[in-house]
Amino acid sequence: MNTQTQQALAIIKRGADELLIESELIEKLEQSAKTGKPLRIKAGFDPTAPDLHLGHTVLINKLRQFQDLGHHVLFLIGDFTGMIGDPTGKSATRPPLTAEQVQENAKSYATQVFKILDKDKTEIVFNSKWLTEMGAAGMLKLAASYTVARMLERDDFTKRFKGNQPIAIHEFLYPLLQGYDSVALKSDVELGGTDQKFNLLMGRELQKQHDQPQQCVLMMPLLEGLDGVNKMSKSLNNYIGINEPPETIFAKIMSVSDELMWRYIELLSFESLETIAGWKAQVAAGENPRNIKVRFAQEIVTRFHSQADAEKALQDFQTRAKGGIPDEVPDVSLTIDGDSIGIAQLLKMAGLVESTSEAYRAIDQGGIKIDGEKISDRNFLVSKGQSFVAQVGKRKFARITI
Amino acid sequence: MNTQTQQALAIIKRGADELLIESELIEKLEQSAKTGKPLRIKAGFDPTAPDLHLGHTVLINKLRQFQDLGHHVLFLIGDFTGMIGDPTGKSATRPPLTAEQVQENAKSYATQVFKILDKDKTEIVFNSKWLTEMGAAGMLKLAASYTVARMLERDDFTKRFKGNQPIAIHEFLYPLLQGYDSVALKSDVELGGTDQKFNLLMGRELQKQHDQPQQCVLMMPLLEGLDGVNKMSKSLNNYIGINEPPETIFAKIMSVSDELMWRYIELLSFESLETIAGWKAQVAAGENPRNIKVRFAQEIVTRFHSQADAEKALQDFQTRAKGGIPDEVPDVSLTIDGDSIGIAQLLKMAGLVESTSEAYRAIDQGGIKIDGEKISDRNFLVSKGQSFVAQVGKRKFARITI
Repeated sequence: MNTQTQQALAIIKRGADELLIESELIEKLEQSAKTGKPLRIKAGFDPTAPDLHLGHTVLINKLRQFQDLGHHVLFLIGDFTGMIGDPTGKSATRPPLTAEQVQENAKSYATQVFKILDKDKTEIVFNSKWLTEMGAAGMLKLAASYTVARMLERDDFTKRFKGNQPIAIHEFLYPLLQGYDSVALKSDVELGGTDQKFNLLMGRELQKQHDQPQQCVLMMPLLEGLDGVNKMSKSLNNYIGINEPPETIFAKIMSVSDELMWRYIELLSFESLETIAGWKAQVAAGENPRNIKVRFAQEIVTRFHSQADAEKALQDFQTRAKGGIPDEVPDVSLTIDGDSIGIAQLLKMAGLVESTSEAYRAIDQGGIKIDGEKISDRNFLVSKGQSFVAQVGKRKFARITI
Repeated sequence: MNTQTQQALAIIKRGADELLIESELIEKLEQSAKTGKPLRIKAGFDPTAPDLHLGHTVLINKLRQFQDLGHHVLFLIGDFTGMIGDPTGKSATRPPLTAEQVQENAKSYATQVFKILDKDKTEIVFNSKWLTEMGAAGMLKLAASYTVARMLERDDFTKRFKGNQPIAIHEFLYPLLQGYDSVALKSDVELGGTDQKFNLLMGRELQKQHDQPQQCVLMMPLLEGLDGVNKMSKSLNNYIGINEPPETIFAKIMSVSDELMWRYIELLSFESLETIAGWKAQVAAGENPRNIKVRFAQEIVTRFHSQADAEKALQDFQTRAKGGIPDEVPDVSLTIDGDSIGIAQLLKMAGLVESTSEAYRAIDQGGIKIDGEKISDRNFLVSKGQSFVAQVGKRKFARITI
């Protein structure tokens, strides 16, 4: 293996859970380098409305890495089954998609994934094309490619079969359809989650039956959510959505543990392995991991918004960290009768409390700050000619000038 | 149940192995009598070149009985799977059929089955029509109608699964396709062999899922072959083909045991149950069952050839039984030198033996007959002016005039 292939392989294997079969991939990479013909990298996506979070981008990042190595990405939208819906009719939440919805969702995917992927090296493909053409006869032939016993070896099928939980027969066809997609696309590599191993290998099986070179299979891990335990998902509310506002993304990243941070960096950062090794060394030498986290958070916000957004998000975060006063606070100018005024009455005049008694209670509970300093005296006086930021509770701010 | 329905039910159940569900069939029959709308009677046939034997006609006879009761037969040729061939590619003997071959085979079916069925009440239908229209998506939906566990309950699947013999997944689709044919045809009754029970009931299942009235299922037994043990089949050479010559059919029927005769009469004769009961009484009272067998053999030969053929076949059979001289024997006129001639020399002159020594051997073995009388004397003389039938062995005959 030459240096170029060695480097490419290191990039491809970074963060990956399993690669099958490495020797075959080396051969494909060398062949591609020799002929200048890019490898065809397949990944399948759900045709339902996409709302991507960082968990999804682990795999998309890997596609980008393949593109940076010169290869061609086949971004496969599995619309064929999507347009059928749930054939058992059991799922009310999964009605069949129309062709128009599929196209809309594809556009939504595009706007999201092209924040990561290189448009020029990406082909968005729909499996309804070849699966519809296949017809009922083709489906029957496809079903002849595999046995019941071998299909039942898939983990979840085994469990359900042994547990007397029903498996509808069409569920046996889905892995075959996914495998056939690889035949139709003549893919060299397919990417998927570790939970997809059986289906990914089906591509190899069917390509062999169709006398095609067999695809390699690269399995990416499932990213843990903010809790560091469960996989990232919207329903567990432990996610960072790529369409969330810059400050939210920034703050959520800053909230992860130092340990989880390294995991996120491995799977989500585009910094080189050498750079990351350098950071680890710095932290080992005593640097605060928080500084690394800030840098990483900026990289991610820049990717999904802009560098300006990342900088602003950082400033906001620092301000809040220091005293918690946000950048933008409403200005309130007040005219008072004497030379000074009691804090409770002033807050009422500024509209930050409803009544002086509410102000007193807030003071008693430590909920009032002037320029970030807590006020504990109910009779605290403020003099005329001053300007300061008053804060009530966590959310109400005003820059008051009297 | 009125008398008409009662009689119809008796005819339908004659010889049948199992009827599911009788109460539903009674209701359908009564409804049909009331409305005048014929029931739709479905039976499926293999699309490969048909060469029917009496075993096949058990079911076709039952269809005819339904027609005589006023109902409509859907003669279904399962060409969809036939045109796919064996998708596993394992069977060299089952190549895919072309549409032209299917049409030819359908014609061949027609010429054969219309010896039994009423053309006006028969519709020949091809399942490629609706199964092709269904498309890959329809096939996937169909596969969702049933579970893996329930499909594995089919006897042969259970055995193969437990015995670690492979079951290809498309084999799970065949029963569903057969069941769907019933949906497409809106059949009221489906006929099939007892070995088809699972697939026949699939029609009920799928019709229910499609909110259709469920078909009744009538299972006919498999007819035993001439050996009285195995089911009739060409490969076991224990069959009576409906295209065989009249004499062959006649002789084969006459060769069955007296016990098997009653079974054949039950399943193959169109005589009424009362008539058959009369025959049984006659035999019980001492009549030779052979006479019943002759009558039955004539019925069958008449059905597949003609009454004239049946009569001729009977005469031939009787001749052979009496002395074995067939109706048509070549005439040979010979001129001899003296007033008489030795039998051996005469047979040689007539070309019935190669040499006089062959003739002597045949005489010694009792293989020479004159007008049906065995000749045992090597020196037997025949006088000039005579005409007689000479027989050598079982097959060689000549009417010799000297």
